[in-house]
Amino acid sequence: MTVSTAITDIGSLITNDPSLTSADNPLGLVRDAAVVIEGDRVVWTGATSKAPPTDNRVDAGGRALLPGFVDSHAHLVFAGDRGPEFAARMSGRPYSAGGIRTTVAATRAASDAELDGNLARLIAEARRQGTTTVETKSGYGLTVEDEARALRIAAERTPETTYLGAHVVAPEYAGDPAGYVDLVTGPMLDACAPYARWVDVFCERGAFDGDQARAVLDAGRARGLTPRVHANQLGHGPGVLLAVELGAASADHCTYLTDADVDALASGDTVATLLPGAEFSTRATYPDARRLLDAGATVALSTDCNPGSSFTTSMPFCIAVAVREMGMSPDEAVRAATYGGARALRRTDVGTVAPGSRADLHLIDAPSHIHLAYRPGVPLTAAVWQAGALVSADGAAV
Amino acid sequence: MTVSTAITDIGSLITNDPSLTSADNPLGLVRDAAVVIEGDRVVWTGATSKAPPTDNRVDAGGRALLPGFVDSHAHLVFAGDRGPEFAARMSGRPYSAGGIRTTVAATRAASDAELDGNLARLIAEARRQGTTTVETKSGYGLTVEDEARALRIAAERTPETTYLGAHVVAPEYAGDPAGYVDLVTGPMLDACAPYARWVDVFCERGAFDGDQARAVLDAGRARGLTPRVHANQLGHGPGVLLAVELGAASADHCTYLTDADVDALASGDTVATLLPGAEFSTRATYPDARRLLDAGATVALSTDCNPGSSFTTSMPFCIAVAVREMGMSPDEAVRAATYGGARALRRTDVGTVAPGSRADLHLIDAPSHIHLAYRPGVPLTAAVWQAGALVSADGAAV
Ligand SMILES: [Zn+2]
Ligand SMILES: [Zn+2]
Repeated sequence: MTVSTAITDIGSLITNDPSLTSADNPLGLVRDAAVVIEGDRVVWTGATSKAPPTDNRVDAGGRALLPGFVDSHAHLVFAGDRGPEFAARMSGRPYSAGGIRTTVAATRAASDAELDGNLARLIAEARRQGTTTVETKSGYGLTVEDEARALRIAAERTPETTYLGAHVVAPEYAGDPAGYVDLVTGPMLDACAPYARWVDVFCERGAFDGDQARAVLDAGRARGLTPRVHANQLGHGPGVLLAVELGAASADHCTYLTDADVDALASGDTVATLLPGAEFSTRATYPDARRLLDAGATVALSTDCNPGSSFTTSMPFCIAVAVREMGMSPDEAVRAATYGGARALRRTDVGTVAPGSRADLHLIDAPSHIHLAYRPGVPLTAAVWQAGALVSADGAAV
Repeated sequence: MTVSTAITDIGSLITNDPSLTSADNPLGLVRDAAVVIEGDRVVWTGATSKAPPTDNRVDAGGRALLPGFVDSHAHLVFAGDRGPEFAARMSGRPYSAGGIRTTVAATRAASDAELDGNLARLIAEARRQGTTTVETKSGYGLTVEDEARALRIAAERTPETTYLGAHVVAPEYAGDPAGYVDLVTGPMLDACAPYARWVDVFCERGAFDGDQARAVLDAGRARGLTPRVHANQLGHGPGVLLAVELGAASADHCTYLTDADVDALASGDTVATLLPGAEFSTRATYPDARRLLDAGATVALSTDCNPGSSFTTSMPFCIAVAVREMGMSPDEAVRAATYGGARALRRTDVGTVAPGSRADLHLIDAPSHIHLAYRPGVPLTAAVWQAGALVSADGAAV
């Protein structure tokens, strides 16, 4: 028999349950709430006073409980550290770094165990901050073998794996970008597709243009992968419109948008995934979440965790920055980091706390989700359940 | 006999030891280092290979060790939560809040135990993030009894207590600010001085003008308290020059500075304490640390932790924002958060890791102090020693 557990006396429960959300209650917030989990699922939510009897009981002590964060955009399979490059950039000092190529070289040189160890450490670090679903991409291998290896390692840790052979043109193909696209859409795709759910491309001046991006995404779709696109990060470009046209789950970054881009995102089924960690760590212009939300687009917030431009696993940090810099309210930012991320991964089992949801729950040391923005930088995570299992808890948490 | 402990295999040790610092090595950084502590003191630093024999040994595993953070500006004795006010401000919604008066009312209504519980919780939260010295102020009581009570409670938890009766004019004196200054410089000072080391005033349009601030600081000095000043946060004003003239240990905020203000800070003995949490949480303009550093001023970074404008205890967060927004390099920001804070409190026993220093040490899960800015929002603290005692450690830390 499956054991049931009630988490009771939740001061403020964020459900994102479509049957509870409304214009006045965008997060489906329930006060003095309880959640009942059985096995890996949520089976009941409601008022503590009406909670059914269960085998176990955890008292939340009036604190806030949220769906675990869904980090739908990260680059976690890599080796090496680019701290000195970061310090030089932020100090205005020249630094003869190869940028992404530094990480490619280190990743290729690393053993499987080293890559898996780094990945596991970053996933655990994210989990301690409330993240229960994480997407991760290849893109630091850039050979058939190294891209497939990255995805094979990633697939052991998360179902949300993304083939990003088209991250940059591999150094070996510097003079032959068309040849690299052929590789990415041919043998490399063949080797990677078994381990990937998604196909992605960095559609940007200096990386892949619209035609190349289309070729990559079409080839991926033909192999059963669903597109997502690095689009319009560093300047205007065709990425967002291409993403919407091809039915991508998400267009990611979305910093430089025309009105046509915004309209397409608002009317289509493609989520706009915003990644404030990247703008924070590169002193770049932040995307305008307000404009997207006002137009009716679905917005997700994610970390873009990677060693070059955004080495954070912290979804609370992204929420705080989104509120400070991107015109999001705390409610909107928290929704984007949970429900929005789930939409960007086309998942309905995560990002919500409702009967049938996977029991991915995040208890914070605060009376309200607002504290995730109100208390920037403070580690508020008290306990995390993933698929019903308590996977992280501070000493006095539960 | 006092027990000795060596912390060895420190990949990167930040000492701030004046005998080791130079233009090329502003943090007195030592690689492959060890630190020996005896009782509450550091007794030796150097290369791991040369460490003397000790009773105990802790392997830092190549990670970075820093002096504990010195948070020289915080307001931790209060009751109440202003999360809804924060959310309204960041959402552009009107909110009929009394601002600081909300906190004054809640603080007056709270029991001693409630105030002490909140204070202890915030100090512990800061400690888990590497802060080993914290200053705190009164200023939410604004009656003789409530100000003295706040300082009496604070003095049980930290020696760095600041009398801030002149935070705002108490509501009871709304029509009689001169009368309130008489109270602050008279009976309230008498009641508070026994529990305070410092005297502070909020010298700003809408709070206390230059003459009133001078009266408050002079009265405090006559009772043996050393001045520090909330100066030039919201606009230009006389605060900084007054602070330097009166020999204040610190002028805090320093957002709106004339060239004369900068010159005074650079040539005097008054530290410029910058508080980016406040600008972050109020969407205000950040102070220009670069200008102050280039002029030769000593800069400290602190949290300004308070429930109205900066509800963070996170010194790493302040470092990350200072690097992103205030023109500081990671080295400068880390120095400001350790050595700078110590200077702002006129302490020579903290903010350094050198023979004779108090053994306040902060081990982080990273190879370099740069990660405090490179990995924004990520809780990196692995272990904290305060006066030689291990006061915080994650499961696998040490
Ligand atoms: Zn990315
Ligand atoms: Zn203050």
